[in-house]
Amino acid sequence: MVNWNNLDTLTSYKELAATAGSVDLTKVMSGEEGAKRVMSYSVPMAEGLAFNYAAKSVDDNVLAKLAALADEAQLADKFAALYNGEVINTGEKRLVLHHMCRGQLGDAVTADGINKRDFYTAQQTKIAEFAKKVHSGEIANAAGEKFTTVVQIGIGGSDLGPRAIYLALENWAKVNNTFKMEAKFISNVDPDDAAAVLNSIDVAHSLFVLVSKSGTTLETLTNESFVKEALKNAGLDASKHMVAVTSETSPLAKSSDYLAAFFMDDYIGGRFSSSSAVGGAVLSLAFGSEVFAAFLKGANEEDKLAANRNIKENPAMLDALIGVYERNVLGYPATAVLPYSQALSRFPAHLQQVDMESNGKSVNRFGEPVNYVTGPIIFGEPGTNGQHSFYQLLHQGTDIVPLQFIGFKNSQIGTDVDIQGSTSQQKLCANVAAQIVAFACGKDDANNNKKFAGNRPSSIIVGDRLTPETIGAILSHFENKVMFQGFLWNVNSFDQEGVQLGKVLAKKVLAHETDGALKVYSDLLNI
Amino acid sequence: MVNWNNLDTLTSYKELAATAGSVDLTKVMSGEEGAKRVMSYSVPMAEGLAFNYAAKSVDDNVLAKLAALADEAQLADKFAALYNGEVINTGEKRLVLHHMCRGQLGDAVTADGINKRDFYTAQQTKIAEFAKKVHSGEIANAAGEKFTTVVQIGIGGSDLGPRAIYLALENWAKVNNTFKMEAKFISNVDPDDAAAVLNSIDVAHSLFVLVSKSGTTLETLTNESFVKEALKNAGLDASKHMVAVTSETSPLAKSSDYLAAFFMDDYIGGRFSSSSAVGGAVLSLAFGSEVFAAFLKGANEEDKLAANRNIKENPAMLDALIGVYERNVLGYPATAVLPYSQALSRFPAHLQQVDMESNGKSVNRFGEPVNYVTGPIIFGEPGTNGQHSFYQLLHQGTDIVPLQFIGFKNSQIGTDVDIQGSTSQQKLCANVAAQIVAFACGKDDANNNKKFAGNRPSSIIVGDRLTPETIGAILSHFENKVMFQGFLWNVNSFDQEGVQLGKVLAKKVLAHETDGALKVYSDLLNI
Repeated sequence: MVNWNNLDTLTSYKELAATAGSVDLTKVMSGEEGAKRVMSYSVPMAEGLAFNYAAKSVDDNVLAKLAALADEAQLADKFAALYNGEVINTGEKRLVLHHMCRGQLGDAVTADGINKRDFYTAQQTKIAEFAKKVHSGEIANAAGEKFTTVVQIGIGGSDLGPRAIYLALENWAKVNNTFKMEAKFISNVDPDDAAAVLNSIDVAHSLFVLVSKSGTTLETLTNESFVKEALKNAGLDASKHMVAVTSETSPLAKSSDYLAAFFMDDYIGGRFSSSSAVGGAVLSLAFGSEVFAAFLKGANEEDKLAANRNIKENPAMLDALIGVYERNVLGYPATAVLPYSQALSRFPAHLQQVDMESNGKSVNRFGEPVNYVTGPIIFGEPGTNGQHSFYQLLHQGTDIVPLQFIGFKNSQIGTDVDIQGSTSQQKLCANVAAQIVAFACGKDDANNNKKFAGNRPSSIIVGDRLTPETIGAILSHFENKVMFQGFLWNVNSFDQEGVQLGKVLAKKVLAHETDGALKVYSDLLNI
Repeated sequence: MVNWNNLDTLTSYKELAATAGSVDLTKVMSGEEGAKRVMSYSVPMAEGLAFNYAAKSVDDNVLAKLAALADEAQLADKFAALYNGEVINTGEKRLVLHHMCRGQLGDAVTADGINKRDFYTAQQTKIAEFAKKVHSGEIANAAGEKFTTVVQIGIGGSDLGPRAIYLALENWAKVNNTFKMEAKFISNVDPDDAAAVLNSIDVAHSLFVLVSKSGTTLETLTNESFVKEALKNAGLDASKHMVAVTSETSPLAKSSDYLAAFFMDDYIGGRFSSSSAVGGAVLSLAFGSEVFAAFLKGANEEDKLAANRNIKENPAMLDALIGVYERNVLGYPATAVLPYSQALSRFPAHLQQVDMESNGKSVNRFGEPVNYVTGPIIFGEPGTNGQHSFYQLLHQGTDIVPLQFIGFKNSQIGTDVDIQGSTSQQKLCANVAAQIVAFACGKDDANNNKKFAGNRPSSIIVGDRLTPETIGAILSHFENKVMFQGFLWNVNSFDQEGVQLGKVLAKKVLAHETDGALKVYSDLLNI
């Protein structure tokens, strides 16, 4: 039986808080001690990845307190409760089953009278068969020609995760001859988003994937109409160009408007849905279902590590604990995600949703206000680009921002040039190595303007190459990190009541049922 | 004569600090008072735009203190000193002249023996003539065929601003028949960035713009080699496909490796260089020089407003003052930039550099550590996408994040659908109006989980449409806001010493001159 307690009521948290300021990175990251830290402060991840936390403000003493906190907060038990099918999303009274899309970690889970693992794998099989037929031309357009483009219509979790993963694997798939169809994404209700995408494609050879769990998302339904209008104007039958990803109870589920419908359910939140049919349909169409299966395999292997009780064998749990230490004990307001890989250009935007929408809460699981800060601001851009942009503030600004680097030994495409004795890939890797040490150790200078205080903590996830398996493992790592942090803060990471008020007021504006400030803003914007 | 004093030494700042918490947005934004605020708390900007700050935590009393602070900090005098050619970038002992690319606000400025306004306009003319010849086919590839694609090779300020503005105007230019060439951007030293762009274009019909002020930027020179290799492999003469944007003293300036060279100088920092040849070459090639001229005109009109002493006639100064109030008095760590326009998808990333690289400093202009926080974290994504991502934290998280909305009455492309009684554009605008009021006023609820505390401040820049003139004015607004905030914090906003240490250490890694932690990281990454 697990107990849900606020972070500040835990004895181990109070003991942890007493260690604030005990680790000076400028010292422990220097010389031989620094070298030893980098070798030993590393946790193996799945798929040959490693989570290296040598440049975090922890030492063996702090780690012991973090381990005690993990035990007292029952992190492993809470994760087990989750994957064994307890109602962890208490606000919405739902199970939380996104892990089950990629494997079964514990007991069989039955809900709505069916085995959920069977349900998710059945959807994967259905998608795989559909994708195969599209790729072979068995499912084709009215002229009998193959579809060449797939367009995902969705917003939030139906957009950010699938888009980030598509971009992460696009070049990899091209090099490995598994690239089947180009993918595009329409998300924003801004009509220029849909119009620009439609202007950039050949609609006659495009398949549209409409993604909405409820079948009621304003942006997505509006963009569906936009697309249907374009198909009609091109003299095409929209129902032969569209598939739906939705819940079985949604109005879209059995509509004849779609070539096929693939199902998700209420036990998978939008921001955790990349592993479900939400990511599965578009990614299987773009790259083939084998690539999507490899992505799921990587995520599942990483999920298994997240079930470990020992924080030194559980990278997501350790990362979560260090993050809470930085946020609540050291008082840092944000975390930057900095992948040294252009293919991960939109991965920080996805993590921004996964993290900020899950843990940007002020009340605990019981609806009681908490007395401590919860989820941080998450932002980031790929390196080395960020180095020429916001790193100035990270190095010399007045706030300390913990950093999450991601780096790979090898590029995806493999084309490279040797300039001044090194390849571009080596320059890329040299930069991330240099940054970690620069942030941790700093540099003294007689001129204060050229002085670096150091003590700016970072960790790095290192891998051989960005592949379907490794991006799966990395995604799992962050999803599970966010989950463990939610457990520590005692918040429900799986609802999002904070998005409701804006929706309600927007409807009032459109119905012209406003007064006061809202009426004047509406007039200003010509609504 | 201006005096450079720390913010916390100013009498008006102490008086301002005493007003903390005096404005309750949930009250003043309600009912008739709220409506009046939205009508009156608005400052006209150039090109028909308006800066509306009704939902900021200010009232007439706070505004009076802000005006006093503007006077005591001599903001208008300092801007005048800047545009009249004083050495405002004291760290690097340089003038700061990016405003002069778009007009002359004060005295003629002579530097290096030449009139600088003449210098910048001469470069614009040279670029315009070159672009015209490219568009007409007078300058063509070896086969005598027109160039169809322009590829900018640059990083940081040579990438983010030009890319954001290109994306802002791409659809506008297509609709207005001024779209001349597609633009692509290579920035990251990650070899997959250059390889992917090169794989996506027809190099035989591509013109490359190499942008590096010093002619020594590692990423840019590496990517130049990458591109030259690709041109060579395609049997093409690289010197017939490349132009340079650089300073006259750089090794690139008179090289025969380029079809043409356009010049910038040391008085324009990278992040402020969109108005110079750095933005001018790629944007004039993509859209025609008339479009770039219209962009400069919008920026210049907005710059003129920034010279006003009255904060109610100077939107950038007012915005800057409110931002400092939020950062230093109210203690908010970050600001989100939220354009309700998909075309502005990369504009927040550009502002992230403009702001964080300028004011992410811990020492004042004299190299003395300051006792207060300076530049905030800047992040953002377009609405409505952000609503389905990180807005949960903005509404219900434990930290308050001030918000900068941007909205337009009309779309750029003009294609739209009417669903449930409103167009997509109306839905877009209804959402931004609703969000402002939701953040300010909040909503009570018996269930704490559905409660919105409100008092989350925002402002909005409203305009008719995103055009070359309006994006110019908006860019000027933020550049000048950042400049005024630098004056208030008494930091030098025009250097970036914080980027140096990483560069030095990366060179050591590549030269295999490392030990300790850096050596182990280098081994981990296989360098």
